[in-house]
Amino acid sequence: MPTVDLVADLGEGFGAYSIGDDAALLDIVSSANIACGFHAGDPDIMNATVAECVRKGVGIGAHPSFPDLRGFGRRAMDLTAEEVRNDVVYQLGALTAFAGYHGASVSHLAPHGRLGNLVATRADYADAVAEAASRVDPSLIILAQDGELALAAARRGLSVGIVGIADRAYQDDGTLVPRALPGAVIHDPAIIVDRTVRMVCEGLIRTASGTDIRIAADTVLLHGDNAGAVELAGLIRSELIAAGVTIAPLAQVLAAKQKVA
Amino acid sequence: MPTVDLVADLGEGFGAYSIGDDAALLDIVSSANIACGFHAGDPDIMNATVAECVRKGVGIGAHPSFPDLRGFGRRAMDLTAEEVRNDVVYQLGALTAFAGYHGASVSHLAPHGRLGNLVATRADYADAVAEAASRVDPSLIILAQDGELALAAARRGLSVGIVGIADRAYQDDGTLVPRALPGAVIHDPAIIVDRTVRMVCEGLIRTASGTDIRIAADTVLLHGDNAGAVELAGLIRSELIAAGVTIAPLAQVLAAKQKVA
Amino acid sequence: MPTVDLVADLGEGFGAYSIGDDAALLDIVSSANIACGFHAGDPDIMNATVAECVRKGVGIGAHPSFPDLRGFGRRAMDLTAEEVRNDVVYQLGALTAFAGYHGASVSHLAPHGRLGNLVATRADYADAVAEAASRVDPSLIILAQDGELALAAARRGLSVGIVGIADRAYQDDGTLVPRALPGAVIHDPAIIVDRTVRMVCEGLIRTASGTDIRIAADTVLLHGDNAGAVELAGLIRSELIAAGVTIAPLAQVLAAKQKVA
Amino acid sequence: MPTVDLVADLGEGFGAYSIGDDAALLDIVSSANIACGFHAGDPDIMNATVAECVRKGVGIGAHPSFPDLRGFGRRAMDLTAEEVRNDVVYQLGALTAFAGYHGASVSHLAPHGRLGNLVATRADYADAVAEAASRVDPSLIILAQDGELALAAARRGLSVGIVGIADRAYQDDGTLVPRALPGAVIHDPAIIVDRTVRMVCEGLIRTASGTDIRIAADTVLLHGDNAGAVELAGLIRSELIAAGVTIAPLAQVLAAKQKVA
Repeated sequence: MPTVDLVADLGEGFGAYSIGDDAALLDIVSSANIACGFHAGDPDIMNATVAECVRKGVGIGAHPSFPDLRGFGRRAMDLTAEEVRNDVVYQLGALTAFAGYHGASVSHLAPHGRLGNLVATRADYADAVAEAASRVDPSLIILAQDGELALAAARRGLSVGIVGIADRAYQDDGTLVPRALPGAVIHDPAIIVDRTVRMVCEGLIRTASGTDIRIAADTVLLHGDNAGAVELAGLIRSELIAAGVTIAPLAQVLAAKQKVA
Repeated sequence: MPTVDLVADLGEGFGAYSIGDDAALLDIVSSANIACGFHAGDPDIMNATVAECVRKGVGIGAHPSFPDLRGFGRRAMDLTAEEVRNDVVYQLGALTAFAGYHGASVSHLAPHGRLGNLVATRADYADAVAEAASRVDPSLIILAQDGELALAAARRGLSVGIVGIADRAYQDDGTLVPRALPGAVIHDPAIIVDRTVRMVCEGLIRTASGTDIRIAADTVLLHGDNAGAVELAGLIRSELIAAGVTIAPLAQVLAAKQKVA
Repeated sequence: MPTVDLVADLGEGFGAYSIGDDAALLDIVSSANIACGFHAGDPDIMNATVAECVRKGVGIGAHPSFPDLRGFGRRAMDLTAEEVRNDVVYQLGALTAFAGYHGASVSHLAPHGRLGNLVATRADYADAVAEAASRVDPSLIILAQDGELALAAARRGLSVGIVGIADRAYQDDGTLVPRALPGAVIHDPAIIVDRTVRMVCEGLIRTASGTDIRIAADTVLLHGDNAGAVELAGLIRSELIAAGVTIAPLAQVLAAKQKVA
Repeated sequence: MPTVDLVADLGEGFGAYSIGDDAALLDIVSSANIACGFHAGDPDIMNATVAECVRKGVGIGAHPSFPDLRGFGRRAMDLTAEEVRNDVVYQLGALTAFAGYHGASVSHLAPHGRLGNLVATRADYADAVAEAASRVDPSLIILAQDGELALAAARRGLSVGIVGIADRAYQDDGTLVPRALPGAVIHDPAIIVDRTVRMVCEGLIRTASGTDIRIAADTVLLHGDNAGAVELAGLIRSELIAAGVTIAPLAQVLAAKQKVA
């Protein structure tokens, strides 16, 4: 009986602004990537989001970003690796304090947006993130796809949770088809649900070329930007459960896996 | 043989900007109030400042502020107590992560600027700061003058370190003469040194009215904004040592005091 | 046949965030208070909002604020009058450049949020705003209720457009019932529409005490924060037109009034 | 008798922070590149700097930047050309309002830092800056070295002021030796003064390879970051005057040139 985590980006409002239906998502996911103030999120929103995660047993994850509120962390910035590392330490620390305030702890870390893209291929940024996490809290799980961040985290002795992204096309080497290419994003909800269930239950995903490759997804990334996305997220959850899958926070998924191994 | 801490505000640069001669002050003080990014300080500066504190055995303190970089935290903002509390949690957490990154921990917390003024008289802000500190790390020492913050911290079970400010005139009730009044700030270095030594060695300070009152200063606040201030800070240190005083980080001062009691 | 302007706050998004249905409002109003980056708005949003105002013949107004994006300009900040004046000059200039870029000009200025409240009663802030406007562009119309800002603007030789707020209760002296008091905000759409039509057509508004007082509203403030608000705004427009009122930008309303006088 | 402008970056403080000795520089230069709030500068500093420029007859220039206060505008950001254009419109407008407030106008525009580097080679950014300037104020002079910005400005019908940089090594094609290469920056004050006088009086500069090339510098860039820099700036001014050169704001230099031609 497979176990998997469901994760989404949460707490991405700022001041009077909100993005996404956090309340609805919190009933669907088992883990949250929580914005830490650099691309979104502010202390009040972080506090409220962490409080809700604790109340609902949702795993708390740091979602650090480039310091670019206006660009929502989606614009590359030419930072040094040391700047990236210090920015991650800062943001991780801020979230850790809110977790502590509510008697909980941060379970994982997943870089956001453009930084999240770059750590898959830039070894210096990947190591900066892994070093920040491992020295601040060596028990953190790093959320990553296959790539430099997963390698750097493992080298630094951190656990890695592999993210499966069912609405993105994969290439035969296990990396995603770049967003700029046609077919990179899958829009049909039925196909996305099918891909998710197969990925979790069989450990397989069909690539853009039509080949099946193995994928060991510890968590599945869900979205909540619009009403349709939240509905789809709920459908993915119920279909996984119907297929006999247990939904559990990332730490439990990795512990279960370790037990098997 | 009395023991006292010497503390100064450090890490108050931002990006390309710097304020104060941190390198010189780090050889004089035994504790540092480190800016956490809201009135000054950024992740790179926080990292460098904490690293130097660890290297020199200087106690690490959080110096949270209203979120007002342009006003250097000196302008009042009409925040709710909950906003103050969340802002303090955020800033304290960020600094805690840098301390952890360098294998150390945060020893104390001292609100900065206008927030620092207000917590002496506003019970709601005082309790917000004390609650933030006590729930994130109950071992933190709160730096305060006599006033609401000292009371709130004690109520929340936190240790309190009383700050003596030798270059400010005191009133007979132990509070400072408000800055707006004439004679509020003392400028003569010789008088400041004398007041400091007397405060630490005899536990007495002469008020604006000419009366001697008791003051139990655990730490003495030094400044480093200009060359003269740093020189005076060094002089205060050497005169205290010449008078037989031991200079030690705040935690040691409080521990010594507790032993005596 | 009375002429009146309809105005609403527009361009209050920031980066990836949006607030209000600007597209719908732009078909209803004849003037816009456009956020200038301090409480909301960024250069991209300002550019797009000004472009749409020009395309639809909507009057362009500056909506300067305290510098507090996180608080949406709703939190008081203890600025000096000089700081307020400089902040207004800066924001007004930024919007003026976007107007110029699109071959148009800024017609009016209306302080936002907490600053907007304070200029009604604080003479120093009111004069700071009026001085900024009059020295940058003496042809600007200042939007105000009766109060210090209207007085300061007149003293500085600026035209004043009086704002009527039909969903707020008035006191017998022509000022608004403070928000904190019960009944301050009127929620019933039918009552709001009636009050607006009467205010514009008869120049009368019934106060909280049941007295009719004279009000010479040059413009009526509409809201667009939610779907209901936009619907109500549209209803107010159509009912005014049904009552024979001409809707026109503020500059035309004041010009018509001057002609009559 | 040659005429040249002397220009330096001014108003680069922020809040409580300052960089450079503006007071000293204002007695040396004839034009100022004034920070507009994105890499440095705030409304209070902009106001004070413009006031001083007006008082001393120093030409007022906008110095727009990437929006990165922490990085002082020195870090590349992956903005679209439209974002660059809107950011320039915003900053230019803000400064224009301060000039207007003091009864003056902005004479020129010079992109700062990393944006200033990129507009020399990125045609899309260069045109974004030129379009912003030409549509907001077609009488603006664009400060540039030879490169894409100078071309784009000319295409948009703007006057171009060529900047000579005497403390940087030139290549035979008239571009600067990149900073990363050895010898890119010249440190010997005597050599810098000689190069400046020769550049202005003879229109020649010796390149890194030892060849003399023609350079038609309308303005010479001076620095004021430290005491040595200000002293050197003063020396350059006095040596130019001793060599019979007239120092005048950029607009006069260009007007004189046009008369000759």
